[in-house]
Amino acid sequence: MVVKVYGKAQAVCPQRVMHCLMEKGVPFELVHVDIDTMEHKRPEFLQKQPFGQVPYIVDGDLELFESRAIVRYLAAKYADRGPNLLGRTPEERAKVEQWLDVEAINYNPWAFPIVFNLLVLPIRGLPANEAEAGAAVDKLNKVLEVYEKQLSKTKYLAGDEFTLADLTHIPATRYIVENCGLSHLLDDKKHVKAWWEDITARPAWKKLSSFVETGGSNYSP
Amino acid sequence: MVVKVYGKAQAVCPQRVMHCLMEKGVPFELVHVDIDTMEHKRPEFLQKQPFGQVPYIVDGDLELFESRAIVRYLAAKYADRGPNLLGRTPEERAKVEQWLDVEAINYNPWAFPIVFNLLVLPIRGLPANEAEAGAAVDKLNKVLEVYEKQLSKTKYLAGDEFTLADLTHIPATRYIVENCGLSHLLDDKKHVKAWWEDITARPAWKKLSSFVETGGSNYSP
Repeated sequence: MVVKVYGKAQAVCPQRVMHCLMEKGVPFELVHVDIDTMEHKRPEFLQKQPFGQVPYIVDGDLELFESRAIVRYLAAKYADRGPNLLGRTPEERAKVEQWLDVEAINYNPWAFPIVFNLLVLPIRGLPANEAEAGAAVDKLNKVLEVYEKQLSKTKYLAGDEFTLADLTHIPATRYIVENCGLSHLLDDKKHVKAWWEDITARPAWKKLSSFVETGGSNYSP
Repeated sequence: MVVKVYGKAQAVCPQRVMHCLMEKGVPFELVHVDIDTMEHKRPEFLQKQPFGQVPYIVDGDLELFESRAIVRYLAAKYADRGPNLLGRTPEERAKVEQWLDVEAINYNPWAFPIVFNLLVLPIRGLPANEAEAGAAVDKLNKVLEVYEKQLSKTKYLAGDEFTLADLTHIPATRYIVENCGLSHLLDDKKHVKAWWEDITARPAWKKLSSFVETGGSNYSP
């Protein structure tokens, strides 16, 4: 049985999980959850993911939710396959964990309202909260100024190798850059820009982008 | 050299780290950071923690910030000492990670504004944003309803053993229960209440509470 990913291809958090599976060359099936009709808030879905969020995965007997927990699990399970995504020593893993938490706690709380207001709501024909989006842009810019300093010292966030710490940033940031008219947030920071070009040039990310664009539902390497 | 924890004893995130060290019986020194005079926003501090937040730790050559990353690192480093806090198999760890992320992403975003508005601001003689606090209480209650269901199935959040998934909740929740007049949020939920009584009866947590009350700065088991 291949891993089943329950979510919507275009949604940020399922993309994080699918990208990780593609980095590791692990086959999976994407099971579409119709967020637009609120399928993720129905009782059947809430039995699997009690907060009504996508994605969750089924891997044999294991059911798991929270995208960042899922990618940690997959990166550990397939440690010997594909790129090392968690660090090789306890100290390296600690740095990966540090930047994974930075993404979840300092980056995503601003990235999310930007994507929601400037991309998701307009697609649904609903008005954006411009003030909320503007404040989030300012906050995100300050976070990216910290990243600029870090990336002047190390090639990737957690050190000199690409890890989950970088990977978790890609899906939301891609929408911010490509769909929210905010590419200058990265472009005006030399090291952030180089990092962004590097991590989005990865074959697995390109594979995922094309999987999403072509409406793919089954991946095998 | 013992582990150095830079933070303020009363602050939630340093408490998470100190509690973990006490569970493991690992000596540490608390180095006071004067948040009240904004020491954590000064250049010297920002060199160690670029987001201006407490805590960070120094453990030999390793400097690390983000409290949840620090406790993961400590629990892995001292896996053979004291209680197992990370799970024994990849699947058990996955469940611990899932609930660690739930705390960071679904619980703390409501717990934090409650503690900030109903405890921190009044201490500073500043007015609370009552509307923000009230909305956060409603949201946190909904999260605790999910916990009630989970804790009717397993004794602790991630399974039948106390892990980091439980530990990370304690410091903020303690203030909510003891200092914000909101103990009913837990008391009206049978399984949550039993869980709360169990996890706050742990010797390490009691030791930390007394360490904080008595203004301790050095811990050795």
